[in-house]
Amino acid sequence: MSAEGAEGAEGGASVGTAGTARPGGRTARTREAVREATLAELADKGFAGLTVEAVAARSGVHKTTVYRRWRNAAGLAADALDLASTEPWPIPDTGTIAGDLRAITALVSTGFLDATDGPTARALVVAAVRDPIASDALRGFLVGRLVDAGSVVERAVERGELPPGTDGVEVVRAAVAPLYYRLFITNEPVGDAVSTRAADAAVVAARAGVFVTDDG
Amino acid sequence: MSAEGAEGAEGGASVGTAGTARPGGRTARTREAVREATLAELADKGFAGLTVEAVAARSGVHKTTVYRRWRNAAGLAADALDLASTEPWPIPDTGTIAGDLRAITALVSTGFLDATDGPTARALVVAAVRDPIASDALRGFLVGRLVDAGSVVERAVERGELPPGTDGVEVVRAAVAPLYYRLFITNEPVGDAVSTRAADAAVVAARAGVFVTDDG
Repeated sequence: MSAEGAEGAEGGASVGTAGTARPGGRTARTREAVREATLAELADKGFAGLTVEAVAARSGVHKTTVYRRWRNAAGLAADALDLASTEPWPIPDTGTIAGDLRAITALVSTGFLDATDGPTARALVVAAVRDPIASDALRGFLVGRLVDAGSVVERAVERGELPPGTDGVEVVRAAVAPLYYRLFITNEPVGDAVSTRAADAAVVAARAGVFVTDDG
Repeated sequence: MSAEGAEGAEGGASVGTAGTARPGGRTARTREAVREATLAELADKGFAGLTVEAVAARSGVHKTTVYRRWRNAAGLAADALDLASTEPWPIPDTGTIAGDLRAITALVSTGFLDATDGPTARALVVAAVRDPIASDALRGFLVGRLVDAGSVVERAVERGELPPGTDGVEVVRAAVAPLYYRLFITNEPVGDAVSTRAADAAVVAARAGVFVTDDG
């Protein structure tokens, strides 16, 4: 997506580092062009190689505009995460909590290991470990995903599979945490057996009431 | 399981990039001085601020020696982790698997949150996320700790608390992973309730046989 004429978009109301304007307007197009260039640069070079200059060149947005709105690599990564937060994703509904959680852990592991999208996803996590602005954005993104995914637990409670008051976010976090631990902390392999076991462990603990919290 | 117990222990067999000599000899003393300076610099400035020059100045070891043996910040962080791997740590033995795993998760969370040692421990994990040499060293350190900690699972199997063939490393990893996820991925708070729940979830799943593996 080309963003020539981005200079003319300065009049739009801006929020945060990235600016917002009417949907589909010029500011939105600029933001989308910068986001796409950021993701492509992250895939190619990782967070350590992400620069405002390269994103400006790749997006066709003027360098001074990128500097003014996104400031630096962390701001670019953070905005890519903020935009990703608003996008839908396929929350599974297999009919059982075990099936749903296995689908979620498989989605996480295949997402990070995917030949096309994996490098970008991993680079965004690395950005968050290195930089507080990107960290805030990643937390927003992941907590949003955990809340979305918690709906599989709500359905399981309604079906009588899990005890009332089970905290959906805690269950999903328990299921995915061992994958992140292996992928980012110890750099150990994550295969189907690991994903399945992580989901199953969370299901068993949830059934036993470990994730029943006072605030429901 | 961070860098607690990082003091002392001069004269261990040396490994990797750091040179070898007789135990307790000049090389071992140099290595210990550099390691102590590295940990102090990490506590003060984080991995992003770790430099060979500052470690040389702080340790009193000549800069060319530090460059030749440790090469760069990642080499310094990796060697600090290699040395920490050889040190004993207090594996709990409370008499129950629930008590032992709660003690282990408490040790991990208090280690990273400790006012004195926490910043260094966190900086070593950040180093590993950023750099492959430090990552290899952190994996070696943490997998060693997981293997050590797996003895609590072996004892539980002997007592009949857990099924035969339960994989101790997998159980301990499941218990600690949610803490690392919160501390390093989403940057969410980790308190006593979080540590206890993570341990309890692993115990329940282990009792149900989720961590029984073919290779025992």
